[in-house]
Amino acid sequence: MRFYKDGHGGDLRATYDFSINVSPLGVSERVRSAIISAFSRADRYPDPCCAGLRAALSAKEGVSAENILAGNGAAELIYAYAAHSRGGAVVVGPTFSEYAAAFRAYGKQVRFVRGYDGVTDLRAGDTVFVCIPNNPDGFFPSREQIFSLAEQCRASGAILFADACFYDFVQAPSFTLSQLLERGALVLQAFTKSYALAGVRLGYLMGDAQVLEGVSRFVQPWSVSCLAQAAGIAAAGDKQYLCDLRALVSREREFLFEGLTSLGFAPRPSQANFLLFEGEKELSLRLAERGIAIRVCDDFEGLVPEEGKKYFRVGVRTREENSVLLEALREVCV
Amino acid sequence: MRFYKDGHGGDLRATYDFSINVSPLGVSERVRSAIISAFSRADRYPDPCCAGLRAALSAKEGVSAENILAGNGAAELIYAYAAHSRGGAVVVGPTFSEYAAAFRAYGKQVRFVRGYDGVTDLRAGDTVFVCIPNNPDGFFPSREQIFSLAEQCRASGAILFADACFYDFVQAPSFTLSQLLERGALVLQAFTKSYALAGVRLGYLMGDAQVLEGVSRFVQPWSVSCLAQAAGIAAAGDKQYLCDLRALVSREREFLFEGLTSLGFAPRPSQANFLLFEGEKELSLRLAERGIAIRVCDDFEGLVPEEGKKYFRVGVRTREENSVLLEALREVCV
Repeated sequence: MRFYKDGHGGDLRATYDFSINVSPLGVSERVRSAIISAFSRADRYPDPCCAGLRAALSAKEGVSAENILAGNGAAELIYAYAAHSRGGAVVVGPTFSEYAAAFRAYGKQVRFVRGYDGVTDLRAGDTVFVCIPNNPDGFFPSREQIFSLAEQCRASGAILFADACFYDFVQAPSFTLSQLLERGALVLQAFTKSYALAGVRLGYLMGDAQVLEGVSRFVQPWSVSCLAQAAGIAAAGDKQYLCDLRALVSREREFLFEGLTSLGFAPRPSQANFLLFEGEKELSLRLAERGIAIRVCDDFEGLVPEEGKKYFRVGVRTREENSVLLEALREVCV
Repeated sequence: MRFYKDGHGGDLRATYDFSINVSPLGVSERVRSAIISAFSRADRYPDPCCAGLRAALSAKEGVSAENILAGNGAAELIYAYAAHSRGGAVVVGPTFSEYAAAFRAYGKQVRFVRGYDGVTDLRAGDTVFVCIPNNPDGFFPSREQIFSLAEQCRASGAILFADACFYDFVQAPSFTLSQLLERGALVLQAFTKSYALAGVRLGYLMGDAQVLEGVSRFVQPWSVSCLAQAAGIAAAGDKQYLCDLRALVSREREFLFEGLTSLGFAPRPSQANFLLFEGEKELSLRLAERGIAIRVCDDFEGLVPEEGKKYFRVGVRTREENSVLLEALREVCV
């Protein structure tokens, strides 16, 4: 019933919103002024080829522009890929719900497996979905794990689909996205999380040009707004923002991890900008009374908490915000 | 090959662009400031339910909010509808290409018919596409024509899909969109054309709530950006803009129609904000040399010009712009 109500995406009423997992640095001034100046072209259709944007992304990623397809957020590309795919989905979970939702919308088979070792019996045409780092737990595979999965996919005629929407938050990743592309994977990226553009909508899929051409047939020609294209061009050229972001998130993730641990929680080790932990069922309600939203992880298939508990995900924010969260948790847990 | 190149959508290099068919009034100040103030929420996911927007559209259209589904431009909703539909498309053409493109992307049957009288042999589950007024010729059906087509669809178990993206330009329409909805039609609307928001992307589909729920399954949850939602709310409340627009377009359409006629062209009678006419093949190239873009209608299936000629579509713009076009045509046709 997503048309009327949807569980995820943040709570716009909360004063402090830890339920979202976007950059705590917010939208950069550079991106902001790019959007405002693009506004003078708002009465024109956006460039359906996204030529300028794809050139900027090409420079950022070191990938040829013909191997990049831009979309109205990463989610649009997941749906278009599901429409294009001829096989089923093998989802390494628990993870983000939209891979399965998209495949199911198109009446295609979805199989959940637990962890990278759970991937077996691949059929030609199947798509293996991994989220790196994984949403909601922040797990990031080793180089050996992901390369061996890519090899397994190639050997079976399956496609590895790596959702790298949180990859920019990883401090010193042991593999590059180009290395995944070289191994035949499709790699999904977004500006939603790392550049705090969730509301503007901009994502891109990288991989084989012929596959992207096929995927693009299921997307309207003008899906990426002129504002998003301008924002993407400005963001792609801003390497300093990403450096600052990684440093901040790395420091604050540690602060929040230690704070949660000292309160008796057991957050999962995370390479992303969020932490997953179990807590008493009522925890989110008690925080909501204090104007603080956290993400209740009821809707991640296969994520089963202990009796009387729930899984919660909190975004890593600024020191000030994180301190507010820890302080509220302290009060609530007394 | 739309991924790399696409024929329609306007020419961003031209000084005077008559190839687009959006409001010549441009983006209103009210919409502009709504977008800029929405920018402070750009780091949050947009409301997937579009609650505020649908409430505003409900007030504008006099239709209950549960009978409205918002999308990232009207084109997204055409694609999602094609994914949802179980039957084939019967397209009353020559017309906008995306109805057929979307149905073909999903491997569904497409049948072109000429004019309203051409609609015969409907099967249950078929969708009959009409564009009112029609793109590219501006034809607007009589009340009898459209009501009788709606009745014909209902009797055959087919669905009437009326694309009303240019409806707001009709001076005194002989039927309302609500009357089409009452007769079981689906009605598509957009802010692309009438509020000059082509670059921001905002459209909506009206009709039976259960059908909309089904269509929405093929769309990602966050397809309408926070900027588009804010723009839509501001635009929906601005009735004066539409009044001014209708008055301007009506006056200028007549001016341009007479100007074209006096130059020896035979523009089609139009109720929209554009005029279709035949001219020498080279006409668009000669205008392009003067920095003027017009729409070459090569890609409208079934629109076949005389030998050595082409069909061209020009948008109705302001008096100043229209005069520039007529002057250039006069020079070129000497």
